[in-house]
Amino acid sequence: MIINIPTSQQKRLVIIGGGFAGLTLAQKLAKSDLQIVLLDKNNYHQFQPLFYQVAMAGLEPSSISFPLRKTFQNSKNVFIRVTEVEEVDTQKNEIHTSIGSLAYDYLVLAIGADTNFFGNERLAEKTIPMKSVSEALFLRNAILEDYEKALSTANYDDRQGLIDIVIVGGGPTGVEVAGALAEMKKYVLPKDYRELDCDEVDIHLLQGSDCLLKGMSSEASESAYKFLTDLGVDVKLNVRVTDYDGEYVHTKDGTKIRADKVIWAAGITGNKIKGLPKESMTWGNRILVNRFNQIKGFENIYAIGDIAFMTEEAYPQGHPQVAQVAIQQAKKLGKNLPKIIQDKTPKPFSYNDLGSMATIGRHRAVVDLPKWKFQGFFAWMIWLGVHLFQLIGVKNRLFVFINWLWNYLTYDQSLRLIIRPKVKKETSLENSKAQN
Amino acid sequence: MIINIPTSQQKRLVIIGGGFAGLTLAQKLAKSDLQIVLLDKNNYHQFQPLFYQVAMAGLEPSSISFPLRKTFQNSKNVFIRVTEVEEVDTQKNEIHTSIGSLAYDYLVLAIGADTNFFGNERLAEKTIPMKSVSEALFLRNAILEDYEKALSTANYDDRQGLIDIVIVGGGPTGVEVAGALAEMKKYVLPKDYRELDCDEVDIHLLQGSDCLLKGMSSEASESAYKFLTDLGVDVKLNVRVTDYDGEYVHTKDGTKIRADKVIWAAGITGNKIKGLPKESMTWGNRILVNRFNQIKGFENIYAIGDIAFMTEEAYPQGHPQVAQVAIQQAKKLGKNLPKIIQDKTPKPFSYNDLGSMATIGRHRAVVDLPKWKFQGFFAWMIWLGVHLFQLIGVKNRLFVFINWLWNYLTYDQSLRLIIRPKVKKETSLENSKAQN
Repeated sequence: MIINIPTSQQKRLVIIGGGFAGLTLAQKLAKSDLQIVLLDKNNYHQFQPLFYQVAMAGLEPSSISFPLRKTFQNSKNVFIRVTEVEEVDTQKNEIHTSIGSLAYDYLVLAIGADTNFFGNERLAEKTIPMKSVSEALFLRNAILEDYEKALSTANYDDRQGLIDIVIVGGGPTGVEVAGALAEMKKYVLPKDYRELDCDEVDIHLLQGSDCLLKGMSSEASESAYKFLTDLGVDVKLNVRVTDYDGEYVHTKDGTKIRADKVIWAAGITGNKIKGLPKESMTWGNRILVNRFNQIKGFENIYAIGDIAFMTEEAYPQGHPQVAQVAIQQAKKLGKNLPKIIQDKTPKPFSYNDLGSMATIGRHRAVVDLPKWKFQGFFAWMIWLGVHLFQLIGVKNRLFVFINWLWNYLTYDQSLRLIIRPKVKKETSLENSKAQN
Repeated sequence: MIINIPTSQQKRLVIIGGGFAGLTLAQKLAKSDLQIVLLDKNNYHQFQPLFYQVAMAGLEPSSISFPLRKTFQNSKNVFIRVTEVEEVDTQKNEIHTSIGSLAYDYLVLAIGADTNFFGNERLAEKTIPMKSVSEALFLRNAILEDYEKALSTANYDDRQGLIDIVIVGGGPTGVEVAGALAEMKKYVLPKDYRELDCDEVDIHLLQGSDCLLKGMSSEASESAYKFLTDLGVDVKLNVRVTDYDGEYVHTKDGTKIRADKVIWAAGITGNKIKGLPKESMTWGNRILVNRFNQIKGFENIYAIGDIAFMTEEAYPQGHPQVAQVAIQQAKKLGKNLPKIIQDKTPKPFSYNDLGSMATIGRHRAVVDLPKWKFQGFFAWMIWLGVHLFQLIGVKNRLFVFINWLWNYLTYDQSLRLIIRPKVKKETSLENSKAQN
């Protein structure tokens, strides 16, 4: 079956992935002379930096998700299809997806990265990742359900398992989740669950190396450590998790920690796509590209964002897998691709590091700018502003802003709802049966 | 197992159900001398009148759901448990739930009603009901997914099946869903799905009797009919649906209509609970109560809201199963119960019909007040105001208001997201496997 896209005089550019990289590129080229087909497995773009706030009941999924179709309502040569791409046929210049095949003139892989369980299937099965809105929502439901269960659990150990949480990985996600959980314990739990002894709630953050927020400055690492321990988080450095059996987290030094929920934020690995030769791949399952994001060995196939591995003078080990790189690469490719098509000389990509930041909770964040590093209240204000500004859609910005203001003033998140869309229809059937 | 609620000198009132009736009663008695245990299968109260807006991507589930714990944060003798109640043991004065048993001194059943499939299991299995936020969200996802699928469906009949919708039942839910779908067809689809021929989208509303909005005035019925047909809805009166095989809706007169999605809003029936004698039950699976909402045959067990069947002079056939009755009964019982406990004389309940209303779309609604009936723009303004005012929580009101204003000004709903919380962990596992 062939995906039904109108034939056109224009050359066809297929972009796989509607994350920061793919979406930015499609926007840049929306008015170009190319027919653009944007493919994603979801019908929305998701704003990864705020997943943890969805998981902590601070934001609604819709506030940080943006329908792809809305972005391109006025772009007549952009076509969107919701599907999973399975394979590239580089010989025939076509891709194979779950809804059919599609030929391309130019192909851009912006397929991003997913949680890395380092091949450990038990960890993959039993721990909770946080690389999508759906996973964040799953975590929100799991946390709230376990607090409810804890109320009816008399056994001390079992209750500890329900209310304690282990977070593996001290990068931005791990640090932000730990901070938000600590604040939930401090401000929300005592009000919502008067019958629970909130002192019993333990939040463990385990980091394999000797500092948090690796990749940021030592000032940032140390402040994050201080902020988290001040909030009562049990931060353990140099602790390697070897296994999780669903009840206990096992570490390399032989200790074990009881927890029914383990959040796995210990690393990412590139999403797989079949059909590329081994020579195009490198470690972390990333795709080797040159300074024009062209995949090694191909003229008309490109990779951008987390999945791409490009080295330049300042980054001999490749760029960090962050939103800024994805956006900058997409913008550059948006300029280079029309040049390449017209046989003009493209300009090589060079990453301009604008800095990085992470927030730990109320009034607490760490910011590393190229020439200035600071932590605390002002950093927190900057963090809020930058993230608000980066969101797509005026309405999303408005809703996130009101939510933040509300939560700030009331010391409360009001989204503590365990809502799941009905999945199967058995319930109605049972209901009907019961009435017969 | 016994549900772990602190023992107390106070008499214990157990309320089953956190809908309009149960929640209102718990609020009224929160400061009384009773220990109150509120049980619901969800951890939130849901605002039923706006379910259809969730299904139509106009509102977020969280905007019309309110966490029960938040309501009672400052009520020290109100205890909340999330569970399904299975049985009442009226001999031992205790209830049995999925998390254990619980003794009561007084019991109030506010268990409400669910969709009535009239014993037809195939309808129960294949059609989509709309009696919970979860079901509304399921419908939203189904509609959006089918539009996506339609883009890749070349066969005309199959495509019709995906984009056409049949709504069975011309009560408020059916009318409001039909109106909202018609507006989506008119304002949103042409922008989001330029490649679809929107004229192909058919919305069928089938009503078994000879008028819409049965129970409202003939002016309201006729205006609703006119508003809907003006919007392009195919309204069919006196049509009885006999079956739905997943592809075709079959009606009593032998016609059949192709549609992959059939919304079933043709009636409700009381939720079941085991342990009550047959003599306490009446038609529609409702529970017979006297004018003090006492269940026939019991002194300390009450029923309020949709599940209760009470007759009074003006309502020899029982009250309509609407929010107003539920709220008024709860308020009255909130006053009567302390009197009954203190052996004072309670006052009999009498329903004060404040009127009813339904909205059909932009600028179109019908309102029946006791002394005044009107339709159109002003009715629509009244509908908006009343529903906004009835929502629980200042933040919910604010968010619904902004959403409405936004949608009104932009002719657009921006929640067209197909988001599901991750259910199982197979996906991560597969991902992990793929990397090995």
